[in-house]
Parts: sequence; C-alpha cells; structure tokens
Amino acid sequence: MTDRGWEFATPGIPDDLFQRGQGPARVPMTKEEIRCLVIGKLRLKSDSVVYDIGAGTGSIAVEAALQAREGRVFAVEKEEAAVALIRENSRRFGVENIAVVHGEAPEALDGLPPADRVIIGGSGGRLEEILRVVASRLKEGGRIVVNAVTIDTLATSVKVLEELGFGEAGTVSLTVARTERVGAARIWKGLNPVCLVVGEKVMY
Amino acid sequence: MTDRGWEFATPGIPDDLFQRGQGPARVPMTKEEIRCLVIGKLRLKSDSVVYDIGAGTGSIAVEAALQAREGRVFAVEKEEAAVALIRENSRRFGVENIAVVHGEAPEALDGLPPADRVIIGGSGGRLEEILRVVASRLKEGGRIVVNAVTIDTLATSVKVLEELGFGEAGTVSLTVARTERVGAARIWKGLNPVCLVVGEKVMY
Amino acid sequence: MTDRGWEFATPGIPDDLFQRGQGPARVPMTKEEIRCLVIGKLRLKSDSVVYDIGAGTGSIAVEAALQAREGRVFAVEKEEAAVALIRENSRRFGVENIAVVHGEAPEALDGLPPADRVIIGGSGGRLEEILRVVASRLKEGGRIVVNAVTIDTLATSVKVLEELGFGEAGTVSLTVARTERVGAARIWKGLNPVCLVVGEKVMY
Amino acid sequence: MTDRGWEFATPGIPDDLFQRGQGPARVPMTKEEIRCLVIGKLRLKSDSVVYDIGAGTGSIAVEAALQAREGRVFAVEKEEAAVALIRENSRRFGVENIAVVHGEAPEALDGLPPADRVIIGGSGGRLEEILRVVASRLKEGGRIVVNAVTIDTLATSVKVLEELGFGEAGTVSLTVARTERVGAARIWKGLNPVCLVVGEKVMY
Repeated sequence: MTDRGWEFATPGIPDDLFQRGQGPARVPMTKEEIRCLVIGKLRLKSDSVVYDIGAGTGSIAVEAALQAREGRVFAVEKEEAAVALIRENSRRFGVENIAVVHGEAPEALDGLPPADRVIIGGSGGRLEEILRVVASRLKEGGRIVVNAVTIDTLATSVKVLEELGFGEAGTVSLTVARTERVGAARIWKGLNPVCLVVGEKVMY
Repeated sequence: MTDRGWEFATPGIPDDLFQRGQGPARVPMTKEEIRCLVIGKLRLKSDSVVYDIGAGTGSIAVEAALQAREGRVFAVEKEEAAVALIRENSRRFGVENIAVVHGEAPEALDGLPPADRVIIGGSGGRLEEILRVVASRLKEGGRIVVNAVTIDTLATSVKVLEELGFGEAGTVSLTVARTERVGAARIWKGLNPVCLVVGEKVMY
Repeated sequence: MTDRGWEFATPGIPDDLFQRGQGPARVPMTKEEIRCLVIGKLRLKSDSVVYDIGAGTGSIAVEAALQAREGRVFAVEKEEAAVALIRENSRRFGVENIAVVHGEAPEALDGLPPADRVIIGGSGGRLEEILRVVASRLKEGGRIVVNAVTIDTLATSVKVLEELGFGEAGTVSLTVARTERVGAARIWKGLNPVCLVVGEKVMY
Repeated sequence: MTDRGWEFATPGIPDDLFQRGQGPARVPMTKEEIRCLVIGKLRLKSDSVVYDIGAGTGSIAVEAALQAREGRVFAVEKEEAAVALIRENSRRFGVENIAVVHGEAPEALDGLPPADRVIIGGSGGRLEEILRVVASRLKEGGRIVVNAVTIDTLATSVKVLEELGFGEAGTVSLTVARTERVGAARIWKGLNPVCLVVGEKVMY
C-alpha cells in the first residue's frame, strides 16, 4: 500500500493491509476473496447508505466506503477493541465516510437513516431480531447480504428473509484456496468456506 | 436491468443480463461470482488500459470497462460469432470504451498501446506464446490474471510467469455453489471450479 | 464391470456401472466420490443392519451391502420406478442381502429389525419425523448419516439430532470436481456440493 | 478406538486415532475424508500388493492394510521419525501386513514384488522418476493414485501418466470442510483441497 491508501477502483484489498490487532485480541476478518464477493453481492451505488453489522476490523466497511464514495457506511460493532481497529483501518485507507457506531444491534441502529444496503457479518446470537429490524429500515429495492460462517446463520437467514417476503437474489457458497510457497512447491491452503445469503426488498 | 445499463458501482453483473447466443452457438461465459473475483484480482484503476484475451461474450470486458471508465478495454477474440456478442453486450450496458479486436492472440495484439492489466480467458492452445508477448507489452507494476479452467492452463501459466520473473500475487482456486429452488427446497448446484493465476510485473 | 460384479474390497463404484433409468424417469444418484465418503462415515461392520431411506437407484444400498456382507440392508423407497432400479442394481452386483421395502418412511420402517446404521438420502419432506422414528429404532452406538443436498435438510438434521441427544460425529461438506477431456484439454467439472450430517447414538 | 483396533469394515479412520508426533516433529497426515477417498480410488482387493510411497504417519498404509487383509503394503518412507510412526500406528491398529521400507523412492523400491496398487503421497521432488519406475513395476490392470497437494505434482502426474500410456481413471479434486463447535455455533473449517490423479495400467 502506498501513502495514498487504496489506489484502485475495484474491491479486493489484500488481507495484510488491514490492522487486525495482536495476539489474543486479534479480530477475525473476512478474507480478501470473500470480501470482494460480498461487495459484489451488495451491488453498491456510489451514494449508497450501508449498515455493516458486526463490522469487526472494518475491512468490509472500508471496501464499501471506497465504492460508495458519496454514500455513508455505518459500522456497527459492540467490542471496544474492534471499534478502535475500524477507526485505525479507516485512517489507513483515507476513507472519511465511515461512521462507527459503538453498540449492539439491533438497538444500536436506532436513529440511523434508512439503509440502501446491509451486510451482516456478526449478530451475537440475535440474527433473527436483527434481520427483522433491518428489514423495516431498508429502502425498497434494497439488499441484505448475510455472511454466514455457521449452519445456524445460514438456515436462520434463509428462513427469516423468506418470512419477511424478501426476494431471493443469489445465495451462494464460496470456497477459496490459495497457493502458498513452501520451498519450491506451491501448496494449496484452504480457507474456511462461507455462504452468502442475499435478499432483496422487492418493490410492488 | 434497467434501460440505464448497470447502475451499480461494483462488479458482479448477473449472468442472464448478458447475451450469450443460442443453441450450439452459445458461447461459454465466466459466471457472475468468478467474474467479480477476476475483476478484483485485476485491481483496475479508473484509467487502466486492459487487454481481455479470448473475450468470449465480452462479460469480463464489460465489467472491466465499467470500472476503468476513463481507460480502455481491448477485447481480443477470434470467433466471429463471439465478436458480435461483445458488440451486443457493450451496447446493452452502454459502455463505449471497449475496442473489439477481431483476431487471434498474440498476433492480434500488434499495434495496441501498452497494457496496465491483462486478463487471459482463452488462449486457443497458444498460452505460453501469448504470455511471453503480453509480458513484454505490460507496463511496470502491471498485472496479468489467467482464468484457468484446465490443469494445463494452470500449470503453464504458473511456470511461464515464474520464468518471466513475475511476482506471485495471489493465485487462488474458487469453488462456487448456488442454491436453486426445486419446489420448496433449495438445492446446492456446483459451478465448475476455476483457478486464477495472478502475476505482477515487479518494478526494480 | 466384469460378470463377477464388483470385485474390489473398497467402496467407490463408478457411476456408469449403475442403472439409473432413461429420460424423464432418470433417478438422481449419489455420485461415486460422495458415495464412497457416505460409506466411510457410516462405519459399517461386516454384519451391520442398515436402513437406506430414500434409496433411489440403490447405489448406496449396493455399496453398503458389499461392505456388510453378513449384514442386511433395508432399502426403503416409495417410487415404483426406483424400486425396480434397486432390484436391477442388486442383481448387477450380485448382492443378495438387500431387502427392498416399497413404501414411505417412517411408516415403512414398521416391523424392520433395529438398525445399526441409517443413511437418509431422501425424506420426502418428512425429515424430522423420520429422524425421530429412526432414532428410536437405532441400536446404542449406532450411526445416522444424512446426505443433505439442501439448506433445509442440513439445518433440520443438525437441530433434530441435537435435540435427540445424539453425539456429533464429523459433519462435513464435500465439494468434488472431476476432470473431463474436451479435445486435448482437461476441464474441471464441478459436482453439486453435499453435506453429510453424522450423528452417533451415544452409550451411557 | 477400542483395544481391538479398528473394528469397522470401511475406511475413514478419524485423524486423532493416529499418532503423528509432537511439536516440530509432527508429521503431515492425509485427513480422514481424503484418506477414505484415496482408498476408494485405489480400488483395493483383499489380496492387493500396495506400495505407499512417502508414507508419512502410515495412516494410508494402515487403511490399505485393513482392506487388503491377505495382501501386503510396502510403506516407503525416508524420514526416520516417520518410519517410527508407521510402526507405532501399525501396532495401534493391529495390522501385520505392512512392511516398512526405510529409504528413498525410487531406489528403495528395488527388490519389492510387483505392485497391484500404488499410492504416491510424497515424492521428495522426484515425482517423474518415481512414476516411471513404478509404472514398470505395476501389474497389468494396476492402479496408481497420486495425492497431489501442489500444482506441480498435479501437472507432472497428469503429464507423465499420459506419456506412459496410462488410462485416465477419475482424476478429481476434493474440498472438505468440517463443522467445529465454537460455543453454541458450528463454524465451517476448510481443509486444504487435494487433487487425486488416478491412472490405470491398461491391458491390451
């Protein structure tokens, strides 16, 4: 990375450009390729208002903010250590349209402007509740992407989005492996697979 | 899709918005999720000059042209039917910065301006030759992404890029599955896995 | 295949050795590699009593019967066309320890001897009910493997097996791709991913 | 595991039943699901003579020996620490038909009886040489399975087996994810993907 932050138009910032914290305080982070696809499934506009719920290190918030340059990203996060990382990573990439919301969803969403897009990266066990509140605050034609790393998250989001009358819009599983040099050899290293559940608030 | 083409800032256009031709003339196309990741690995700038070699339907060329709005995409394709599809898909998405080059690489690259980025989607059995010519026409700091759907393409690109002194920059394999409604059930449908070999022309 | 049936000690019979029916009557079949892993997760003994629920073509029943040579496999299937295929495939491989049960689970399980192992390949929308009945007919230390090709099946089996107090025993997702010759090239073809949910009736 | 070793007829022994060594001496091991599929692709008979080249912990050798009970498995391994593990794991599972060959292939193969089956798990950079020697020592109708965890191994085995006139017999890639309990959640953990290159010595 240069001093200019991320100088590219496209998503997919390498993992090691983000600050994640040290040792036991290290925060889980969505990996480059998954993050790139999350951004793609969000279908951001340059002026989108985005909620990033369970923002963690802020890596997705940063990518979203770079795409929605005239929009705004609300990065909701309850852990104080992670909140500091989101601020640090925003600075690193020179993005000024991320608002960090230190608190727990869905309560922390009170008072935010309606959203065009929502990404749910973490839900602290309150996924159904969050989905219902978020659905009511999403604009017509808006999109929700749930980054599901567990069976429960996958099943719950599919079920609740259907109950809420959301249109299915491309739920996928993504399995990525990277090559790693070990001596002269390039060994395949598997990342953890992720499911992205995508819902669209259909206009009638 | 609306009449306005693709109104989003991010890559990942749904497959069915592209024209692919009918019946036996149907042209193979890189699927949405893979295409999104190809664009991410290319790391486009808004003014990038891009070669898309073996452009097929032009789906990647269109996505690249939408990201590199002040740049230019040279879509190289030898098949006449595919050339017509690239033109048709450019029109559909209202992109005017794609130049279709009807011919076979590497000869067809003669006379093109140097490239910032190269995507190789098809090589007609001449991959090594193409890589060597392309490497010489790529600017310092430029990137090559090879979309490898066969073992030979994977192995050849890794070997040749290494011989050419390119830096490794994130070679990955990608496996995507989508859910498909069959009655009340959502069945996982696997897409064909793809490897993206990524090389960077290192500056000294 | 020779006239002698399957002459190998190990599971993993190639798909094209099974009869699947023609055209619209073609019955879905668990593919070789997945089938091999289903058999592995079942942990059969040579005298196991196995229920194969939703047996389809009987491909898993045949593999199980070959491993549990002194045991018995009850292949439960409601579709008449599939029942005929199970009989045909049993003949082809010369296995005589498959009993075809033409009917719908769980009712069709009435009167069967207690099971050591259960594989659920299809449930006709009655998965929870089937799991509860099957759990009561499974011997202590027995195993259930659910072949889940949909999100609902995955989520329901995990939830119900947990409620029933079953031990988790290696739930996995499996993604297989095969190479296929297309001219000189070997193209990767992705199969549909499958999750195997594995439960063990724990002894106290 | 009970004192009786592995009491099941089918392959797929859980990873933690094998001894792998401690700390820096820990030896890489083929994981349960991959191992199960390796055994399936080998198509063992009860009296098969098997070479396991680069046997590591002996986990595949043990599984093969359990299937080929009247056959013999030659576990070839150059590292002394691994040789000790193979002996230890053979004892654990009570298999007596594994012969440990301490040495480096292909030289270490001198004097062994012709093979019915060969699994190559490691080649110490001498894969092509090993394949050529092994091909000459393989009986007609015999099978070679190469467990390829790198791009080079994959490409070299496909190329050399083709040059040697072997029939292609089901080359596959396998990507496995397991669920892991983290609190109440079951998170998907990806294993490293593996390609199995399978060749058959065709009879004329």
